Amino acid sequence: MRELDFIEWIYGRSRFDSGVVPVGPGDDCAVVKIGGHDVLITVDQVLDGVHFMLDRDGPMAAGRKAMARNLSDIAAMAGVPTAAVASVALPRGMSELDCQAIYAGLREAGDAFNCPLVGGDVGSWADKMAISVTIIGRPGPHGAVLRSGARAGDAICVTGSLGGSWRGEKHLTFTPRIAEGLDIARRCDLHAMIDISDGLAADLHHICKASHFGAEIMAADMPVASDSTLDGALSDGEDYELLFTLPAGQAAALVAQGAAGTSATRVGTITMAPEVVLIAPDGGRTLLQPKGWQHST
Amino acid sequence: MRELDFIEWIYGRSRFDSGVVPVGPGDDCAVVKIGGHDVLITVDQVLDGVHFMLDRDGPMAAGRKAMARNLSDIAAMAGVPTAAVASVALPRGMSELDCQAIYAGLREAGDAFNCPLVGGDVGSWADKMAISVTIIGRPGPHGAVLRSGARAGDAICVTGSLGGSWRGEKHLTFTPRIAEGLDIARRCDLHAMIDISDGLAADLHHICKASHFGAEIMAADMPVASDSTLDGALSDGEDYELLFTLPAGQAAALVAQGAAGTSATRVGTITMAPEVVLIAPDGGRTLLQPKGWQHST
Repeated sequence: MRELDFIEWIYGRSRFDSGVVPVGPGDDCAVVKIGGHDVLITVDQVLDGVHFMLDRDGPMAAGRKAMARNLSDIAAMAGVPTAAVASVALPRGMSELDCQAIYAGLREAGDAFNCPLVGGDVGSWADKMAISVTIIGRPGPHGAVLRSGARAGDAICVTGSLGGSWRGEKHLTFTPRIAEGLDIARRCDLHAMIDISDGLAADLHHICKASHFGAEIMAADMPVASDSTLDGALSDGEDYELLFTLPAGQAAALVAQGAAGTSATRVGTITMAPEVVLIAPDGGRTLLQPKGWQHST
Repeated sequence: MRELDFIEWIYGRSRFDSGVVPVGPGDDCAVVKIGGHDVLITVDQVLDGVHFMLDRDGPMAAGRKAMARNLSDIAAMAGVPTAAVASVALPRGMSELDCQAIYAGLREAGDAFNCPLVGGDVGSWADKMAISVTIIGRPGPHGAVLRSGARAGDAICVTGSLGGSWRGEKHLTFTPRIAEGLDIARRCDLHAMIDISDGLAADLHHICKASHFGAEIMAADMPVASDSTLDGALSDGEDYELLFTLPAGQAAALVAQGAAGTSATRVGTITMAPEVVLIAPDGGRTLLQPKGWQHST
């Protein structure tokens, strides 16, 4: 069964008491009420051979990425992390130094955002290394930002630059955009936000689907990483930048100033028309597929 | 590196602001403050070939066990579960029915305790199935019960019967003792509690070490499961019963009435002397090793 089919199937079975679970599966974090307070919770795993290559990247980078991916999900809600727990499946016979390096990577990424590792589970097996991290946190002072709040006419913006993350080191060394998410939420009326893990094209589709609108992306405005192509910036994924929408009138000031020291770029507009369209420098329009940029036929 | 050594090494590196993390690693759950409220959080994974055998037990039993093990950790704090998230590493090519069965197992175990699955992460890889579940919850009305509160003279009690879980089906079908933990906390001054995952001998050592006391266990009083031996009841593990201490004067009433429909048995006494001792029916005393019952030499 394909992962996305399975996930969609699960969403279809998820019904909650909104007084207990205001936001269930399908956003960057779920939101759960405990003692009247909103608690953010998110889980993400990294698997050897899929999300990292243990032989090539080493155990510390794997631990770091496991924590940072989850911090990125908290950032995408304009949230603040509180604490993390991790489970680690260790290849049998892994050395003491390698085990300690996993922990060092988890801690390094968490400590940078005041997110202590408060619990864990360690098991050895005959298979490859897998690390699953869960982070709980709280919405920032301006509340949790969902994928579903985009409105027609909103500017679509991204932090940083996009593309080439997996071919290079960025997918292992990126800085989760916690500070940026909070800064943007403080300065603007953030309508919708997501972190770019699947690629701008796919993640923009997530926002459009959740918000019931379409979008136009201006190819010439895309912040393409220096070692990437436009196609890579649209579809490589693993950028862990923030993709968000806000009233168009607020975008210019944000773009001029950046967010918490990181550049912000306006790349397009939310539209009433339900399609997600890429507009070339010459004005040509092509449908932007969720899997990335596709030439029109 | 051995799992326990790694875990001990991690504990040694864990220092927290007690206003944010009142209870860090080393208990059944951590306790984290969010919005002034105590939030319980626990993580546990199940790995094919270690905690279940996919070929023999099937995917639904694996999902069920992954959720139930975590519920048992909430029970051990006398807590109430609020919500769960899960990450699943799927063997590539797993069938749609098998994927849905994992989910059905997670849901069956969670739904029985009002613990919805609010988020997840699914990834496919070329290796075996691994499921990691995190549950967040809140302490029951009488507060979180830790491992560290046992006092000399306390009665040591357990719910249910012990031994043989892994050889039979109990490790897959057990009922997490959520109701029992809350019931005991309501009726008694619970001083310390843990769930029996490593075996009574090992888990009693966890309580004694955390509480800085010793213990005497009466072999003749052990509630040995019908298909187990005393040795099995002391050291098999995977019982997922509650092991707890309370003022000796309160034990008789509890034992007479049971807890939430489950039997409770007094098996010994917390002692000033730091050793953990097993007392045979003839009065002979042997040290009870953390790994289980060992004949004296």
